[in-house]
Amino acid sequence: MRASQFHLFTLKEAPSDAEVVSQKLMLRAGMIRKAAAGIYSYMPMGLRAIRKVEAIIREEMNRAGAMELVMPLVQPAELWQETGRWDKMGEELLRLKDRHERDFALQPTSEEVVTDIARQELKSYRQLPKNFYQIQTKFRDERRPRFGVMRGREFVMKDAYSFDRSAEAAGRSYDIMYAAYQRIFDRLGLAYRAVAADTGAIGGDRSHEFQVIADTGEDAIVYCPTSAYAANIELAEAVSLLPHRAAPEEGLEKTPTPGRETCAEVADLLDLPLERTVKSLVLAADEVDEAGRPAGATVWLLLVRGDHELNEVKAGKIDGLKAGFRFASETEILEHFGSRPGSLGPIGPRRPVRIVADRTVADMADFVCGANEEGFHYTGVNWGRDLPEPDLVADIRNVVEGDPSPDGRGTLAIQRGIEVGHVFYLGTRYSEAMNATFLDDDGKPKHFEMGCYGIGVTRILGAAIEQNHDARGIIWPVPIAPFEAVVCPVGWSKSPAVREESQRLYDALLAAGVDVMLDDRDERPGVMFADWELIGVPHRITLGERGLKDGIAEYQGRRDGEASKVPVADVAAFVIERVKAARA
Amino acid sequence: MRASQFHLFTLKEAPSDAEVVSQKLMLRAGMIRKAAAGIYSYMPMGLRAIRKVEAIIREEMNRAGAMELVMPLVQPAELWQETGRWDKMGEELLRLKDRHERDFALQPTSEEVVTDIARQELKSYRQLPKNFYQIQTKFRDERRPRFGVMRGREFVMKDAYSFDRSAEAAGRSYDIMYAAYQRIFDRLGLAYRAVAADTGAIGGDRSHEFQVIADTGEDAIVYCPTSAYAANIELAEAVSLLPHRAAPEEGLEKTPTPGRETCAEVADLLDLPLERTVKSLVLAADEVDEAGRPAGATVWLLLVRGDHELNEVKAGKIDGLKAGFRFASETEILEHFGSRPGSLGPIGPRRPVRIVADRTVADMADFVCGANEEGFHYTGVNWGRDLPEPDLVADIRNVVEGDPSPDGRGTLAIQRGIEVGHVFYLGTRYSEAMNATFLDDDGKPKHFEMGCYGIGVTRILGAAIEQNHDARGIIWPVPIAPFEAVVCPVGWSKSPAVREESQRLYDALLAAGVDVMLDDRDERPGVMFADWELIGVPHRITLGERGLKDGIAEYQGRRDGEASKVPVADVAAFVIERVKAARA
Repeated sequence: MRASQFHLFTLKEAPSDAEVVSQKLMLRAGMIRKAAAGIYSYMPMGLRAIRKVEAIIREEMNRAGAMELVMPLVQPAELWQETGRWDKMGEELLRLKDRHERDFALQPTSEEVVTDIARQELKSYRQLPKNFYQIQTKFRDERRPRFGVMRGREFVMKDAYSFDRSAEAAGRSYDIMYAAYQRIFDRLGLAYRAVAADTGAIGGDRSHEFQVIADTGEDAIVYCPTSAYAANIELAEAVSLLPHRAAPEEGLEKTPTPGRETCAEVADLLDLPLERTVKSLVLAADEVDEAGRPAGATVWLLLVRGDHELNEVKAGKIDGLKAGFRFASETEILEHFGSRPGSLGPIGPRRPVRIVADRTVADMADFVCGANEEGFHYTGVNWGRDLPEPDLVADIRNVVEGDPSPDGRGTLAIQRGIEVGHVFYLGTRYSEAMNATFLDDDGKPKHFEMGCYGIGVTRILGAAIEQNHDARGIIWPVPIAPFEAVVCPVGWSKSPAVREESQRLYDALLAAGVDVMLDDRDERPGVMFADWELIGVPHRITLGERGLKDGIAEYQGRRDGEASKVPVADVAAFVIERVKAARA
Repeated sequence: MRASQFHLFTLKEAPSDAEVVSQKLMLRAGMIRKAAAGIYSYMPMGLRAIRKVEAIIREEMNRAGAMELVMPLVQPAELWQETGRWDKMGEELLRLKDRHERDFALQPTSEEVVTDIARQELKSYRQLPKNFYQIQTKFRDERRPRFGVMRGREFVMKDAYSFDRSAEAAGRSYDIMYAAYQRIFDRLGLAYRAVAADTGAIGGDRSHEFQVIADTGEDAIVYCPTSAYAANIELAEAVSLLPHRAAPEEGLEKTPTPGRETCAEVADLLDLPLERTVKSLVLAADEVDEAGRPAGATVWLLLVRGDHELNEVKAGKIDGLKAGFRFASETEILEHFGSRPGSLGPIGPRRPVRIVADRTVADMADFVCGANEEGFHYTGVNWGRDLPEPDLVADIRNVVEGDPSPDGRGTLAIQRGIEVGHVFYLGTRYSEAMNATFLDDDGKPKHFEMGCYGIGVTRILGAAIEQNHDARGIIWPVPIAPFEAVVCPVGWSKSPAVREESQRLYDALLAAGVDVMLDDRDERPGVMFADWELIGVPHRITLGERGLKDGIAEYQGRRDGEASKVPVADVAAFVIERVKAARA
């Protein structure tokens, strides 16, 4: 490609509403253009990267035996009503009516449509397993679209759906997809981690997120550097930090703590380590009677150590909270504890509450907690002696850096990540709701065992940039760079030698299959270099009249500190070797 | 690809709501599956053909210097309001609201978005010409979606938009696209015709449709077999069929024609050729006053020969009818002619009407027309003598087979066609509405001269099948067949010789780059043949134990009357040669 025949468009400054670096750089490099909040055009430069990502995904999905199809973007409400998602999904599901006032949704994913296809076209166990995938536009009407392609409303996603005879077979399909995802992210040239994730109502351990590691990531990912353990923060298991509960050494004492509400303030006042305090969190689960009418709320007191944080996903797995919970209102708190938040604790609530202690809290002795009286805390609190044992001991906190790994093989570290892929075992949730069955070898109909597997195609671009950039711009991994190399002639219009040698080099790279750009705009070196560094092309070769006299070209790798001199005769082979190495 | 690893799904009968042969065959061959009226999933077998069409289009668009991008499917109303299309477009434009009650449209095309991109990114004449294209999902909320992918609501379209400095330069861009379209349709292996089409309000002669020739096509295309003349029926020029107006030979006579209303009935009664009669059509153009309030209607009488048909597009080009017209109501007709339809004519209307004669009618003498009195016609009518010359003589009829070609170089023939592509010069219609300008070399801002160029990607599949099928199924042109060849082993599970030889042939074809399917389902030959003939794979090779003993394979081209015997040793080369020839 010649620059004069391409649409190059770069900006010195990003638009003021751009929030994160990937968004700023993609806008500045002319890769995307905003059409509305969370809705972008993919410009020629950006689309080249998208197409490369898509090609890698497609190759690996096909290699894994999945079959590509395309399902509609505009999907009839009837299918969504069959699974109940028409009602359950909130405003993220963009609903619309056609000219005949029939209801439709824009696809955020396609479980319903693919299950409808399966129940019509997969009749026999002999047709299984099957895995259908599409690379297609999706729409989610995010409340607050932001971060460019990282959390857009319209985006491109690869979504795959597997159909199996049994849970065991579905496990094999899952493993095949997991392995395909590893190959995909390896080939994309990204540093990533596959982490176990929560399975929600489905249960089981078959849910993994593929997280691109980046300091700016929205997700916290937990891993053990000395073992294979890796999970997202929602799932990562927190063990007790105490070997056992120590015997009491202090007496229970009610201490004035005027104006001190947080554990840190209380610990500071009492000159005790924060690890001696216990934080009280009051939740409420609304009840309904048999007719579905509201029937009051059950109030729960959850206790975590003062330096720990409640993990709401874990709390949601407690029997009694599974159907949903909320933080209790001030009225409910006053009613049950006789005191406002800031002095709450498990000793002598006014009305009965269910008390859940985090594993570490259950092992604490001589701890500090609120006295259910404004301006007072208890010190020297001990389970069994000063208050009954908790109703339930459970893992209800987020792990923190340095916690023991739950596999007992090291201590945990935490990184930030950007979720770009998710593999998920669905079981029969959709096939039962839609009565999608096949005839098994015993002649009886059975519901399909399903899995779903997503990759955020456009989000990968943002994640790749969050992970790979510097002050000058993007640093693309070679496999997804819009161009692998650029030839920058200095003096294109003036020097026939520069023009001929540049054309020769360009032709040689092109002939070797390198995706190369020839910058024939006749711009000054500074302008060319700034553009290509912003755009993030991995390999740059500069040819000028002076260098050519000595048979020298200037080579600059995008990550290199400085340019190096390479004989003109060798420079094509030099670049080809590097490009091919990065592709493998 | 092996059949056992693919999703093969064929039906003996098409669903009862399928109307045309391409729709029936695509459903029976498992290429598409209906999700809602006019909304289809593209199944793996169908998607393979779509991807091949897309690849050819993409290659030729890139070769023509166009740049691929992707514009959003969900587009903000504001842009559509700038051009007025938000209001002007009817219900075909599917409108929706996001969670914040902001208005959006699903793209039927993308003139607004691309012009918005151009006004922001194309600042200087030095950046011109530019041509942006996308291959992307479109949505048009057709009142009556039908014919499968031929007139769907959600479909895939390639739409391109060119930006130029001047009308002359835009003409060059148009010619480049016209040539690219010829290469595309040549390479797709389709019999087609590029025909001049109406330019509507834009004017000029720069609009061509690319029509795939098929007896079942909705469009009539007109061409001259002995010259280059070709146009769609809306545009094709009808000349006078008479060399000059003959002198009157008959006297005017009012003849009773009780119960005879059509020209054919009257001619029959009077025993005259239909070519002696004149048909009266009454149109009305609603007027508005300066404040935009309705201000009555002007009534027009249009006259065509009894065997001819009014061409409404041509009528719409008459001064006074350009702003829109309708057929007059019975009340208006009674008011102006004193008679009901069936006896209307140009002699002595009760109130003044504007009379437009088709060119042939203006040259007629001694003709027959209604007498504006129920049950009576005039015979022997002559212009000038019996009634004034018409207010206007114009081409207002459809041409018919056998008419002289307007270029004077033969007579016209008519074929049916399916419009699959359209190239159109837009002028400054959109750039003026959106004030999209660039700085020209005189330092002054100028509006872009634009063109738009569409190809219906999914419709091409339907058109290809309408053109190429027989009683057994689809006959794909090789370049877009889902598979180019299929190897059918007879006795896959039982005969090691058949298995080995089939695998060897499959491997050889694959190695030569043939897109080949190995049917390893172990089905009977009848089942395999029926499936592959329905699906329309161009080349089939059958290997059975008996033939192999004599070193013979059976080859069947999809268009061949019968199979032929080819030595097993030669059959790979035989197929490879045929496939490569069809691709070139």
